Amino acid sequence: MDSLKQRILTEGRVLPGNIIKVDGFMNHRIDTRLMREIAREFRRLFPDPDITAILTAEASGIALAAITADEFDVPMIFAKKAKSDNIEGGLYQSDIYSYTYKKKVTLLVSSQWLTSQDKVLVVDDFLANGEALKGLVDIVHQAGAKLAGIGIAIEKGFQGGGDRLREAGYPLKSLVIIEQADGQGIRFRNQQTL
Amino acid sequence: MDSLKQRILTEGRVLPGNIIKVDGFMNHRIDTRLMREIAREFRRLFPDPDITAILTAEASGIALAAITADEFDVPMIFAKKAKSDNIEGGLYQSDIYSYTYKKKVTLLVSSQWLTSQDKVLVVDDFLANGEALKGLVDIVHQAGAKLAGIGIAIEKGFQGGGDRLREAGYPLKSLVIIEQADGQGIRFRNQQTL
Repeated sequence: MDSLKQRILTEGRVLPGNIIKVDGFMNHRIDTRLMREIAREFRRLFPDPDITAILTAEASGIALAAITADEFDVPMIFAKKAKSDNIEGGLYQSDIYSYTYKKKVTLLVSSQWLTSQDKVLVVDDFLANGEALKGLVDIVHQAGAKLAGIGIAIEKGFQGGGDRLREAGYPLKSLVIIEQADGQGIRFRNQQTL
Repeated sequence: MDSLKQRILTEGRVLPGNIIKVDGFMNHRIDTRLMREIAREFRRLFPDPDITAILTAEASGIALAAITADEFDVPMIFAKKAKSDNIEGGLYQSDIYSYTYKKKVTLLVSSQWLTSQDKVLVVDDFLANGEALKGLVDIVHQAGAKLAGIGIAIEKGFQGGGDRLREAGYPLKSLVIIEQADGQGIRFRNQQTL
Protein backbone atom coordinates (compact mmCIF):
# COMPACT_ATOMS: atom_id res chain seq x y z
CA MET A 1 0.00 0.00 0.00
CA ASP A 2 2.02 2.89 -1.35
CA SER A 3 0.28 5.74 0.48
CA LEU A 4 0.94 4.06 3.82
CA LYS A 5 4.60 3.41 2.94
CA GLN A 6 4.94 7.05 1.98
CA ARG A 7 3.49 8.25 5.29
CA ILE A 8 5.85 5.96 7.20
CA LEU A 9 8.84 7.27 5.26
CA THR A 10 7.94 10.94 5.61
CA GLU A 11 6.45 11.02 9.13
CA GLY A 12 7.66 7.89 10.88
CA ARG A 13 10.65 7.94 13.18
CA VAL A 14 12.88 5.09 14.27
CA LEU A 15 13.72 5.04 17.98
CA PRO A 16 16.27 2.88 19.77
CA GLY A 17 15.07 -0.70 20.15
CA ASN A 18 13.61 -0.80 16.63
CA ILE A 19 10.55 1.14 17.77
CA ILE A 20 8.84 2.73 14.81
CA LYS A 21 6.87 5.76 15.86
CA VAL A 22 3.93 6.58 13.62
CA ASP A 23 1.86 8.25 16.28
CA GLY A 24 1.13 11.28 14.12
CA PHE A 25 -1.27 9.33 11.93
CA MET A 26 -1.75 5.84 13.32
CA ASN A 27 -1.91 5.37 17.05
CA HIS A 28 -2.11 8.59 19.04
CA ARG A 29 -3.24 11.17 16.53
CA ILE A 30 -5.31 9.22 13.99
CA ASP A 31 -5.61 10.29 10.36
CA THR A 32 -9.14 9.08 9.69
CA ARG A 33 -8.75 9.47 5.92
CA LEU A 34 -5.80 7.10 5.96
CA MET A 35 -7.72 4.71 8.22
CA ARG A 36 -10.51 4.72 5.62
CA GLU A 37 -7.99 3.90 2.85
CA ILE A 38 -6.61 1.04 4.95
CA ALA A 39 -10.13 -0.23 5.70
CA ARG A 40 -10.94 -0.28 1.98
CA GLU A 41 -7.75 -2.20 1.32
CA PHE A 42 -8.76 -4.77 3.96
CA ARG A 43 -12.09 -5.09 2.21
CA ARG A 44 -10.39 -5.71 -1.11
CA LEU A 45 -8.10 -8.32 0.45
CA PHE A 46 -10.86 -10.03 2.47
CA PRO A 47 -13.95 -9.82 0.24
CA ASP A 48 -15.77 -12.54 2.20
CA PRO A 49 -19.45 -11.46 2.49
CA ASP A 50 -19.96 -13.73 5.50
CA ILE A 51 -17.75 -11.73 7.86
CA THR A 52 -19.89 -10.85 10.91
CA ALA A 53 -17.44 -8.98 13.13
CA ILE A 54 -14.11 -7.16 13.32
CA LEU A 55 -12.01 -8.07 16.36
CA THR A 56 -9.06 -6.12 17.76
CA ALA A 57 -7.31 -5.50 21.10
CA GLU A 58 -7.36 -2.28 23.08
CA ALA A 59 -6.19 0.34 22.81
CA SER A 60 -4.21 1.35 19.74
CA GLY A 61 -6.06 -0.94 17.32
CA ILE A 62 -9.52 0.38 18.17
CA ALA A 63 -9.63 3.39 15.85
CA LEU A 64 -8.56 1.41 12.78
CA ALA A 65 -10.87 -1.47 13.70
CA ALA A 66 -13.83 0.92 14.14
CA ILE A 67 -13.36 2.47 10.71
CA THR A 68 -12.83 -1.01 9.24
CA ALA A 69 -16.04 -2.26 10.84
CA ASP A 70 -17.85 0.78 9.47
CA GLU A 71 -16.46 -0.07 6.03
CA PHE A 72 -17.59 -3.72 6.32
CA ASP A 73 -20.89 -2.62 7.94
CA VAL A 74 -20.49 -5.08 10.82
CA PRO A 75 -19.92 -4.60 14.56
CA MET A 76 -16.46 -4.23 16.04
CA ILE A 77 -15.38 -6.00 19.22
CA PHE A 78 -12.28 -5.04 21.12
CA ALA A 79 -10.63 -7.37 23.60
CA LYS A 80 -10.06 -5.63 26.91
CA LYS A 81 -6.77 -5.88 28.73
CA ALA A 82 -6.79 -7.04 32.35
CA LYS A 83 -9.92 -6.87 34.43
CA SER A 84 -11.88 -3.76 35.25
CA ASP A 85 -14.99 -3.55 37.40
CA ASN A 86 -17.20 -3.20 34.36
CA ILE A 87 -16.57 -6.74 33.12
CA GLU A 88 -18.35 -9.66 34.73
CA GLY A 89 -18.09 -13.43 34.27
CA GLY A 90 -18.62 -15.31 31.03
CA LEU A 91 -15.33 -14.36 29.43
CA TYR A 92 -13.02 -15.77 26.84
CA GLN A 93 -9.53 -14.96 27.98
CA SER A 94 -6.04 -15.41 26.66
CA ASP A 95 -2.77 -14.57 28.37
CA ILE A 96 -0.16 -12.86 26.24
CA TYR A 97 3.16 -11.19 26.90
CA SER A 98 3.15 -7.46 26.17
CA TYR A 99 6.53 -6.29 24.92
CA THR A 100 5.27 -2.71 25.20
CA TYR A 101 4.50 -3.03 28.89
CA LYS A 102 7.05 -5.79 29.59
CA LYS A 103 4.56 -7.92 31.48
CA LYS A 104 1.87 -10.51 31.06
CA VAL A 105 -1.47 -9.14 29.97
CA THR A 106 -4.79 -10.94 29.76
CA LEU A 107 -7.05 -10.30 26.78
CA LEU A 108 -10.74 -10.59 27.60
CA VAL A 109 -13.83 -10.82 25.41
CA SER A 110 -17.30 -11.35 26.82
CA SER A 111 -18.76 -14.63 25.57
CA GLN A 112 -22.00 -12.75 24.91
CA TRP A 113 -20.52 -10.93 21.95
CA LEU A 114 -18.66 -13.66 20.09
CA THR A 115 -20.23 -17.03 19.31
CA SER A 116 -19.88 -20.04 17.02
CA GLN A 117 -22.15 -18.20 14.57
CA ASP A 118 -19.50 -15.56 13.95
CA LYS A 119 -16.92 -15.25 11.19
CA VAL A 120 -14.26 -12.86 12.37
CA LEU A 121 -11.74 -10.62 10.69
CA VAL A 122 -9.00 -9.80 13.18
CA VAL A 123 -7.52 -6.33 12.60
CA ASP A 124 -4.64 -4.51 14.23
CA ASP A 125 -2.49 -1.48 13.53
CA PHE A 126 0.83 -3.20 14.27
CA LEU A 127 2.23 -6.70 14.21
CA ALA A 128 5.62 -7.25 15.83
CA ASN A 129 6.08 -10.42 17.85
CA GLY A 130 2.54 -11.51 17.19
CA GLU A 131 1.59 -11.97 20.83
CA ALA A 132 -1.58 -9.86 20.68
CA LEU A 133 -2.69 -11.63 17.51
CA LYS A 134 -2.11 -15.05 19.01
CA GLY A 135 -4.34 -14.03 21.90
CA LEU A 136 -7.06 -12.75 19.58
CA VAL A 137 -6.98 -15.87 17.41
CA ASP A 138 -7.09 -17.99 20.57
CA ILE A 139 -10.25 -16.12 21.61
CA VAL A 140 -11.83 -16.68 18.18
CA HIS A 141 -11.16 -20.41 18.64
CA GLN A 142 -12.53 -20.42 22.21
CA ALA A 143 -15.75 -18.92 20.85
CA GLY A 144 -15.97 -21.63 18.21
CA ALA A 145 -16.11 -18.85 15.64
CA LYS A 146 -14.54 -18.96 12.18
CA LEU A 147 -11.46 -16.89 11.41
CA ALA A 148 -11.95 -15.06 8.11
CA GLY A 149 -8.48 -13.57 8.19
CA ILE A 150 -6.01 -11.28 9.90
CA GLY A 151 -5.50 -7.80 8.49
CA ILE A 152 -2.55 -5.74 9.68
CA ALA A 153 -1.60 -2.21 8.69
CA ILE A 154 2.12 -2.31 9.55
CA GLU A 155 4.09 -5.50 10.18
CA LYS A 156 7.58 -5.35 11.64
CA GLY A 157 8.87 -8.20 9.52
CA PHE A 158 12.27 -8.27 11.20
CA GLN A 159 10.64 -9.37 14.47
CA GLY A 160 9.35 -12.55 12.88
CA GLY A 161 5.87 -12.74 14.39
CA GLY A 162 4.11 -12.40 11.04
CA ASP A 163 6.14 -15.08 9.29
CA ARG A 164 5.55 -17.48 12.17
CA LEU A 165 1.79 -16.95 11.81
CA ARG A 166 2.00 -17.45 8.03
CA GLU A 167 3.99 -20.64 8.47
CA ALA A 168 1.35 -21.87 10.89
CA GLY A 169 -1.18 -21.41 8.10
CA TYR A 170 -3.02 -18.31 9.27
CA PRO A 171 -4.59 -16.12 6.55
CA LEU A 172 -2.52 -13.05 7.45
CA LYS A 173 -2.16 -10.04 5.19
CA SER A 174 -0.09 -7.02 6.14
CA LEU A 175 -0.43 -3.90 4.01
CA VAL A 176 3.15 -2.91 4.67
CA ILE A 177 6.00 -5.08 5.98
CA ILE A 178 9.04 -3.29 7.37
CA GLU A 179 12.19 -5.38 6.98
CA GLN A 180 14.64 -2.95 8.48
CA ALA A 181 14.31 0.10 10.70
CA ASP A 182 17.45 1.57 12.18
CA GLY A 183 19.94 4.38 11.71
CA GLN A 184 20.16 3.37 8.05
CA GLY A 185 16.51 4.18 7.51
CA ILE A 186 13.40 2.13 6.79
CA ARG A 187 13.28 -0.64 4.18
CA PHE A 188 10.09 -2.46 3.12
CA ARG A 189 9.56 -6.05 2.01
CA ASN A 190 8.52 -6.33 -1.60
CA GLN A 191 5.04 -7.90 -1.65
CA GLN A 192 4.04 -8.28 -5.26
CA THR A 193 1.27 -10.76 -4.59
CA LEU A 194 -0.73 -8.83 -2.02
CA MET B 1 -31.65 10.93 20.70
CA ASP B 2 -34.48 8.44 20.65
CA SER B 3 -32.67 5.54 18.97
CA LEU B 4 -29.95 5.63 21.63
CA LYS B 5 -32.51 5.77 24.45
CA GLN B 6 -34.26 2.80 22.90
CA ARG B 7 -31.05 0.76 22.74
CA ILE B 8 -30.28 1.58 26.36
CA LEU B 9 -33.77 0.50 27.44
CA THR B 10 -33.79 -2.73 25.46
CA GLU B 11 -30.16 -3.84 25.77
CA GLY B 12 -28.70 -1.97 28.72
CA ARG B 13 -28.48 -3.51 32.14
CA VAL B 14 -28.21 -1.86 35.53
CA LEU B 15 -25.66 -3.41 37.87
CA PRO B 16 -25.14 -2.72 41.58
CA GLY B 17 -23.40 0.60 42.11
CA ASN B 18 -25.42 2.36 39.42
CA ILE B 19 -23.25 0.85 36.70
CA ILE B 20 -25.06 0.92 33.37
CA LYS B 21 -23.80 -1.80 31.09
CA VAL B 22 -24.18 -1.04 27.40
CA ASP B 23 -21.26 -3.11 26.27
CA GLY B 24 -23.28 -4.85 23.56
CA PHE B 25 -23.33 -1.74 21.39
CA MET B 26 -21.18 0.97 22.96
CA ASN B 27 -17.97 0.00 24.67
CA HIS B 28 -16.94 -3.61 24.14
CA ARG B 29 -18.92 -4.72 21.12
CA ILE B 30 -19.41 -1.55 19.06
CA ASP B 31 -22.42 -1.06 16.81
CA THR B 32 -20.80 1.05 14.12
CA ARG B 33 -24.14 2.07 12.61
CA LEU B 34 -25.22 3.53 15.94
CA MET B 35 -21.81 5.23 16.28
CA ARG B 36 -22.41 6.82 12.88
CA GLU B 37 -25.83 8.08 14.01
CA ILE B 38 -24.28 9.54 17.14
CA ALA B 39 -21.48 11.13 15.11
CA ARG B 40 -24.04 12.79 12.82
CA GLU B 41 -25.90 14.08 15.85
CA PHE B 42 -22.66 15.60 17.18
CA ARG B 43 -22.20 17.25 13.84
CA ARG B 44 -25.69 18.72 13.99
CA LEU B 45 -25.09 19.99 17.53
CA PHE B 46 -21.59 21.34 16.84
CA PRO B 47 -21.77 22.66 13.26
CA ASP B 48 -18.60 24.75 13.70
CA PRO B 49 -16.61 24.46 10.44
CA ASP B 50 -13.38 25.46 12.22
CA ILE B 51 -13.10 22.28 14.29
CA THR B 52 -9.66 20.78 13.56
CA ALA B 53 -9.58 17.72 15.81
CA ILE B 54 -11.64 15.31 17.90
CA LEU B 55 -10.13 14.50 21.30
CA THR B 56 -11.01 11.58 23.57
CA ALA B 57 -9.40 9.37 26.22
CA GLU B 58 -8.45 5.73 25.79
CA ALA B 59 -9.89 3.23 25.62
CA SER B 60 -13.66 3.07 25.49
CA GLY B 61 -14.14 6.44 23.80
CA ILE B 62 -11.83 5.69 20.88
CA ALA B 63 -14.30 3.91 18.61
CA LEU B 64 -16.94 6.62 18.87
CA ALA B 65 -14.32 9.35 18.51
CA ALA B 66 -12.86 7.67 15.40
CA ILE B 67 -16.25 7.50 13.66
CA THR B 68 -16.97 11.08 14.78
CA ALA B 69 -13.65 12.28 13.36
CA ASP B 70 -14.44 10.46 10.13
CA GLU B 71 -17.81 12.24 10.05
CA PHE B 72 -16.17 15.65 10.66
CA ASP B 73 -13.30 14.75 8.30
CA VAL B 74 -10.64 15.77 10.82
CA PRO B 75 -8.02 13.79 12.76
CA MET B 76 -8.79 12.15 16.08
CA ILE B 77 -6.42 12.27 19.03
CA PHE B 78 -6.77 10.02 22.03
CA ALA B 79 -5.16 10.80 25.36
CA LYS B 80 -3.17 7.85 26.62
CA LYS B 81 -3.44 6.67 30.19
CA ALA B 82 -0.23 6.31 32.24
CA LYS B 83 3.11 6.05 30.55
CA SER B 84 4.18 3.36 28.12
CA ASP B 85 7.55 3.01 26.45
CA ASN B 86 6.20 4.33 23.19
CA ILE B 87 5.63 7.85 24.52
CA GLU B 88 8.52 10.24 24.91
CA GLY B 89 8.84 13.73 26.35
CA GLY B 90 6.91 16.80 25.23
CA LEU B 91 3.63 15.86 26.81
CA TYR B 92 0.58 17.62 28.08
CA GLN B 93 -0.58 15.72 31.10
CA SER B 94 -3.45 15.86 33.51
CA ASP B 95 -4.02 13.74 36.60
CA ILE B 96 -7.53 12.45 37.12
CA TYR B 97 -9.17 9.99 39.44
CA SER B 98 -10.56 6.94 37.69
CA TYR B 99 -13.68 5.63 39.44
CA THR B 100 -13.55 2.58 37.16
CA TYR B 101 -10.06 1.61 38.29
CA LYS B 102 -10.28 3.28 41.72
CA LYS B 103 -6.93 5.01 41.37
CA LYS B 104 -5.23 8.08 40.00
CA VAL B 105 -4.60 7.97 36.28
CA THR B 106 -2.59 10.39 34.18
CA LEU B 107 -3.90 11.43 30.79
CA LEU B 108 -1.16 12.18 28.27
CA VAL B 109 -1.20 13.90 24.89
CA SER B 110 1.93 14.59 22.91
CA SER B 111 2.44 18.31 22.43
CA GLN B 112 3.25 17.59 18.78
CA TRP B 113 -0.35 16.77 17.97
CA LEU B 114 -2.27 19.53 19.70
CA THR B 115 -1.32 23.19 19.37
CA SER B 116 -2.72 26.69 19.79
CA GLN B 117 -3.87 26.46 16.17
CA ASP B 118 -6.39 23.76 17.03
CA LYS B 119 -10.08 23.99 17.79
CA VAL B 120 -11.09 20.82 19.54
CA LEU B 121 -14.32 18.90 19.98
CA VAL B 122 -13.97 16.62 22.99
CA VAL B 123 -15.99 13.42 22.61
CA ASP B 124 -16.63 10.54 24.98
CA ASP B 125 -19.02 7.63 25.24
CA PHE B 126 -19.85 8.18 28.92
CA LEU B 127 -19.91 11.04 31.38
CA ALA B 128 -20.32 10.17 35.05
CA ASN B 129 -18.25 12.15 37.53
CA GLY B 130 -16.63 14.14 34.78
CA GLU B 131 -13.05 13.35 35.80
CA ALA B 132 -11.91 12.20 32.34
CA LEU B 133 -13.50 15.25 30.73
CA LYS B 134 -11.87 17.62 33.18
CA GLY B 135 -8.52 16.08 32.26
CA LEU B 136 -9.21 16.40 28.53
CA VAL B 137 -10.34 20.03 28.84
CA ASP B 138 -7.26 20.73 30.95
CA ILE B 139 -5.09 19.34 28.14
CA VAL B 140 -6.89 21.50 25.55
CA HIS B 141 -6.08 24.52 27.72
CA GLN B 142 -2.44 23.48 28.19
CA ALA B 143 -2.11 23.33 24.41
CA GLY B 144 -3.55 26.83 24.10
CA ALA B 145 -6.17 25.33 21.78
CA LYS B 146 -9.79 26.42 21.58
CA LEU B 147 -12.54 24.21 22.93
CA ALA B 148 -15.33 23.92 20.37
CA GLY B 149 -17.48 21.81 22.65
CA ILE B 150 -17.93 18.57 24.53
CA GLY B 151 -20.11 15.87 22.99
CA ILE B 152 -21.19 12.94 25.13
CA ALA B 153 -23.27 9.95 24.11
CA ILE B 154 -24.57 8.90 27.55
CA GLU B 155 -24.45 11.09 30.65
CA LYS B 156 -25.20 9.65 34.06
CA GLY B 157 -27.00 12.77 35.24
CA PHE B 158 -27.48 11.45 38.77
CA GLN B 159 -23.70 11.54 39.34
CA GLY B 160 -23.60 15.29 38.80
CA GLY B 161 -20.44 15.61 36.71
CA GLY B 162 -22.27 16.96 33.67
CA ASP B 163 -24.22 19.61 35.58
CA ARG B 164 -21.05 20.79 37.29
CA LEU B 165 -19.40 21.25 33.89
CA ARG B 166 -22.48 23.11 32.56
CA GLU B 167 -22.52 25.38 35.60
CA ALA B 168 -18.85 26.12 34.99
CA GLY B 169 -19.83 27.33 31.52
CA TYR B 170 -18.57 24.48 29.36
CA PRO B 171 -20.38 23.89 26.07
CA LEU B 172 -21.44 20.35 26.97
CA LYS B 173 -24.11 18.43 25.10
CA SER B 174 -25.11 14.90 26.04
CA LEU B 175 -27.33 13.02 23.64
CA VAL B 176 -28.94 11.09 26.46
CA ILE B 177 -28.97 11.93 30.17
CA ILE B 178 -29.90 9.15 32.56
CA GLU B 179 -31.48 10.50 35.75
CA GLN B 180 -32.11 7.23 37.47
CA ALA B 181 -30.79 3.70 37.02
CA ASP B 182 -31.62 1.13 39.67
CA GLY B 183 -33.95 -1.74 40.41
CA GLN B 184 -36.83 0.53 39.34
CA GLY B 185 -35.42 0.77 35.83
CA ILE B 186 -33.89 3.56 33.77
CA ARG B 187 -35.36 7.06 33.56
CA PHE B 188 -34.08 9.79 31.21
CA ARG B 189 -33.92 13.55 31.67
CA ASN B 190 -36.23 15.42 29.33
CA GLN B 191 -34.02 17.59 27.10
CA GLN B 192 -36.33 19.53 24.83
CA THR B 193 -33.76 22.09 23.81
CA LEU B 194 -30.98 19.81 22.58
